[in-house]
Amino acid sequence: MANEEKATASDVERSNDTTGSARFHKPTSQPFIGRLGGNQEFALDPRDASNAALLQQVPDAASHMSLRAQLGLDGFRCLVLWKAAIIEGIGTLMLTFLTIWINLSPGGIPTPPTAQFGVFDNAAFIGPIVGGITNWFLVTLFTYSFGAVSGAHLNPTITIATFFARLCTLPRMVLYVAFQTGGSALAGLLVRVAIDTRDFKVGGCWLFTDQVSVSSAFVVEFVSCCALLFIAFGVGLDPRQRKVVGPTLSPFLVGMGLGTITFGTGFTRYGFGGAGMNPARCFGAFVGSRFPSWHWINWVANIAACILHGLVYHLIPPFEEYDL
Amino acid sequence: MANEEKATASDVERSNDTTGSARFHKPTSQPFIGRLGGNQEFALDPRDASNAALLQQVPDAASHMSLRAQLGLDGFRCLVLWKAAIIEGIGTLMLTFLTIWINLSPGGIPTPPTAQFGVFDNAAFIGPIVGGITNWFLVTLFTYSFGAVSGAHLNPTITIATFFARLCTLPRMVLYVAFQTGGSALAGLLVRVAIDTRDFKVGGCWLFTDQVSVSSAFVVEFVSCCALLFIAFGVGLDPRQRKVVGPTLSPFLVGMGLGTITFGTGFTRYGFGGAGMNPARCFGAFVGSRFPSWHWINWVANIAACILHGLVYHLIPPFEEYDL
Amino acid sequence: MANEEKATASDVERSNDTTGSARFHKPTSQPFIGRLGGNQEFALDPRDASNAALLQQVPDAASHMSLRAQLGLDGFRCLVLWKAAIIEGIGTLMLTFLTIWINLSPGGIPTPPTAQFGVFDNAAFIGPIVGGITNWFLVTLFTYSFGAVSGAHLNPTITIATFFARLCTLPRMVLYVAFQTGGSALAGLLVRVAIDTRDFKVGGCWLFTDQVSVSSAFVVEFVSCCALLFIAFGVGLDPRQRKVVGPTLSPFLVGMGLGTITFGTGFTRYGFGGAGMNPARCFGAFVGSRFPSWHWINWVANIAACILHGLVYHLIPPFEEYDL
Amino acid sequence: MANEEKATASDVERSNDTTGSARFHKPTSQPFIGRLGGNQEFALDPRDASNAALLQQVPDAASHMSLRAQLGLDGFRCLVLWKAAIIEGIGTLMLTFLTIWINLSPGGIPTPPTAQFGVFDNAAFIGPIVGGITNWFLVTLFTYSFGAVSGAHLNPTITIATFFARLCTLPRMVLYVAFQTGGSALAGLLVRVAIDTRDFKVGGCWLFTDQVSVSSAFVVEFVSCCALLFIAFGVGLDPRQRKVVGPTLSPFLVGMGLGTITFGTGFTRYGFGGAGMNPARCFGAFVGSRFPSWHWINWVANIAACILHGLVYHLIPPFEEYDL
Repeated sequence: MANEEKATASDVERSNDTTGSARFHKPTSQPFIGRLGGNQEFALDPRDASNAALLQQVPDAASHMSLRAQLGLDGFRCLVLWKAAIIEGIGTLMLTFLTIWINLSPGGIPTPPTAQFGVFDNAAFIGPIVGGITNWFLVTLFTYSFGAVSGAHLNPTITIATFFARLCTLPRMVLYVAFQTGGSALAGLLVRVAIDTRDFKVGGCWLFTDQVSVSSAFVVEFVSCCALLFIAFGVGLDPRQRKVVGPTLSPFLVGMGLGTITFGTGFTRYGFGGAGMNPARCFGAFVGSRFPSWHWINWVANIAACILHGLVYHLIPPFEEYDL
Repeated sequence: MANEEKATASDVERSNDTTGSARFHKPTSQPFIGRLGGNQEFALDPRDASNAALLQQVPDAASHMSLRAQLGLDGFRCLVLWKAAIIEGIGTLMLTFLTIWINLSPGGIPTPPTAQFGVFDNAAFIGPIVGGITNWFLVTLFTYSFGAVSGAHLNPTITIATFFARLCTLPRMVLYVAFQTGGSALAGLLVRVAIDTRDFKVGGCWLFTDQVSVSSAFVVEFVSCCALLFIAFGVGLDPRQRKVVGPTLSPFLVGMGLGTITFGTGFTRYGFGGAGMNPARCFGAFVGSRFPSWHWINWVANIAACILHGLVYHLIPPFEEYDL
Repeated sequence: MANEEKATASDVERSNDTTGSARFHKPTSQPFIGRLGGNQEFALDPRDASNAALLQQVPDAASHMSLRAQLGLDGFRCLVLWKAAIIEGIGTLMLTFLTIWINLSPGGIPTPPTAQFGVFDNAAFIGPIVGGITNWFLVTLFTYSFGAVSGAHLNPTITIATFFARLCTLPRMVLYVAFQTGGSALAGLLVRVAIDTRDFKVGGCWLFTDQVSVSSAFVVEFVSCCALLFIAFGVGLDPRQRKVVGPTLSPFLVGMGLGTITFGTGFTRYGFGGAGMNPARCFGAFVGSRFPSWHWINWVANIAACILHGLVYHLIPPFEEYDL
Repeated sequence: MANEEKATASDVERSNDTTGSARFHKPTSQPFIGRLGGNQEFALDPRDASNAALLQQVPDAASHMSLRAQLGLDGFRCLVLWKAAIIEGIGTLMLTFLTIWINLSPGGIPTPPTAQFGVFDNAAFIGPIVGGITNWFLVTLFTYSFGAVSGAHLNPTITIATFFARLCTLPRMVLYVAFQTGGSALAGLLVRVAIDTRDFKVGGCWLFTDQVSVSSAFVVEFVSCCALLFIAFGVGLDPRQRKVVGPTLSPFLVGMGLGTITFGTGFTRYGFGGAGMNPARCFGAFVGSRFPSWHWINWVANIAACILHGLVYHLIPPFEEYDL
């Protein structure tokens, strides 16, 4: 059985050690059970004594860590975790800059819908098409590119959801969210320099409260985040899907989910830019333009969705305990 | 032959048991012969004595259950079935909310077609494009995400069709349809909160009877449901397609089928929003707006299609009996 | 070599016999050498004595049947063949209904092209886009769904071409074409019920002879059918492509071929709806609306293409004879 | 190593010999080192004595033929080569007819760009979109369909480039180019019958020299052909890509390359229809309409690109020599 385990792990990890380009230098992929797009394949075996030292510092390198291990603060002294968080910050900076830039529009409300075409004959319809498709491709590419280093969350909603699903330690969550938010703020400042104005709005992060009530926006943000989390966990983190979806297909599907919801919620209601689903991205957009009074939605609705998803995840888990 | 069987089953199930991340906790995929997108791969062996206890409660975990087992009411006392039904309800809630939201339009009839472009130069044409493509992607993603838990029906038409094809027990059908309808009703209420009005119509669930007769709509709904069922069974449930399509491709193709028919029937006739093909979704849309007098079409045409499909399924079955 | 042969065949057929869900009931895929999307993989071994009885009734279950076997009338007494033909009829009914419905337009000629956009700014351009893409997806899905039962021809042009390529017996051709045509006629009547008028035209089946001569339409129909046949045989029936394309990809490519030619021929010439490539579909459309005087084109041009293709198929065959 | 070579070849070739449907008749795929979309997989082993007779007649059935063998005239007496050339002619006829028909427009220059939308609000922008996408799909499908017979060049530019890369003998080049050009001329005459006029122009084959100089068109044609060749050789002929791209994916990518360049060069400059990249197709278009004075560009620029590509191919080859 140990042999089988090694064989399986080598499908992704060890086979790299012996290929031509990596002859004298071993590629290293940090094990992390909450790696998006890996279907929990990139994990350590907790029974292997040689893994004990690493698991002491990085308990979420294996599945089913204890609550004490999850909430322990040792991770803050772990250099590997800081490196992963810095990569999350850099990745989020680039992803946020691009997805803000592509979705920029002037600060005012668009022209109202016409009788003939309704919401469709309007910049507020074409914008989400462009934003949805580019979100899809960019998230897919960044998930492929950063998955091996940090798990490619690049979004506090994903990180916090893995925390409540107990696939991520407290220190990792704190560090990731901090660097994601910091990277996004920097991206927002770079956008302001590139556009030479603060008077812009960004798709997924705008709401005219005289047209659409805050509670309406909250409902859309909350249900969208729930759907994003069930999709992201279903195709990118559920170990039962490892053979069906796997690391080759899941970054594509996670991107498709985010892109489709970005587009689908973006044009329906006049005066509302659609679900954000990434609080760091909207935070960065507001650092670059101006903070609205309802920015709390981006955090409260998303964290509420993370908690709801975590409850369902534990009531109907993808695992059952058994003896060896 | 027994060895071969184990080897085949382990492609999806057993190989997970021995990989690193699932060491002491086995990933659990509830066996269900009617799992959409599984091509009947996720099933038990009825000759294996260790499966007898589970098959007593969940007869549709294996193929070719007896009529007595299919219609028995023991399933109502089976916790696993209730959990699967709850997941169906949550999934249908999210899927219905999103697909209603994306297809929202004001309650009135659109502007009539013009001479130059006919039906194409109109919101009633662009709406179904958007609805069809997003239906495709969302159904694909939700089928991937919920397949391992409940079979990812998320639609009474699919559940009732598996019942008439004898791939689903009576208790499962009752519970699934009840939770699908309940989840959709809740989604409809959330949409009403998010749009702040009852005066809206939803693509696939509207008909102006002064323009289009009820019998016309019935024909389109009936033929569309037949096509959906033959496609869904052909690519997602037919065991002969397991090697050709398989669980990796079939959620994509099932979504493509639903999306293409959604779009294709949505714009042709002025005054008719196209085939619904999901009675729970239209039920939710009407809970959120108002019930029309012809809502029975969404149930009667769909159930009639399920019965017709069931008859053909038994006349020209994908199986033939043989002795061991 | 015999062992190798069994191993290869079992990739698709035999492995199903031994998997869990099909324990006492073997999934049955009727062997048919002319199965579209199968690359002739679903065939019997004529040297195996146990196949002799079936080959007596269904000679096209194996390759290279004798001319006597191809033209024998025993097939008319074969229940399996009638079942396959019924499935062809049901499939063609649904496919034709949907592809007629999607391509409906009022009976009159569209507005003429303008100077600025030429043929592009016109319903006669958008119609074929919609028709081409939906044809693609629907043909793909129906080929997947019905391939295992009848071979998924769903089109007399394909059936007649397999006859002239000697991949189909006379009785099968007669039965298939009869049921395809009958199913289409029923679909045309259902469309008339659903649209409440006979005054409509259908993409791929209309021609204003005061604008475009019959001989022009004949040339387009003939070359288009030739291209369709070379593509369908190349990606879906050529045994040399089995490893390259195979049953998983070929339904997608066959649909892409039909959809692309549907679109590509549909808008270029003002007054002509493009190549039909399926005489049963146009027959059904005319049963639902009215028969034009040039309907013979849909049959004569297509059968001429079948004969030409058959000639090339025999002059430059994909097989060469050899001794064992 | 001989074993390795056999094992690789049998992936595609030999396994077909032993499957059920090809019992007494071996599927024949003519070995040809320059087969587009084959990544040089369909080749003979020159060290195998049993291949000597065929290699005498068809030296480009194996890699690294001698210059004497490449320029020998024995091929003109080889029936297999004539059959392949006939298939090239038939394929080019159909492909050219369809791609000319789809890209037809009236003979005059389109309306000039407007101030508001520039080149985008014009038939000269929509035409290349349509032409690019349909080129992509049709080239993909024809490459799949004819690859096994002739190598699916269907374009003198590809054939001449394989000659200069020494993947094609002189007789094969002469026969292929002759039949490609003849088939295209016939296609042009059929288009004239189908359109009932000589007064038309074809996308990729038109130029208004009062707007755009011949030298400008030459540069666009030359650079486009270079790009096409590097793409076609990179994804369809480079043996290093055999495992990454392979015969299943490369026809799709070759078509994508041609389609993207068709579109990308087609609308930018007012008065110029974009790069042709297939001299036989433009020859056929001019047979159907009228020959312009600058038709030599289609041949000279393309052959120049073939020679440049051949030089780079030999300076930086995809092979390195090694001892056995």
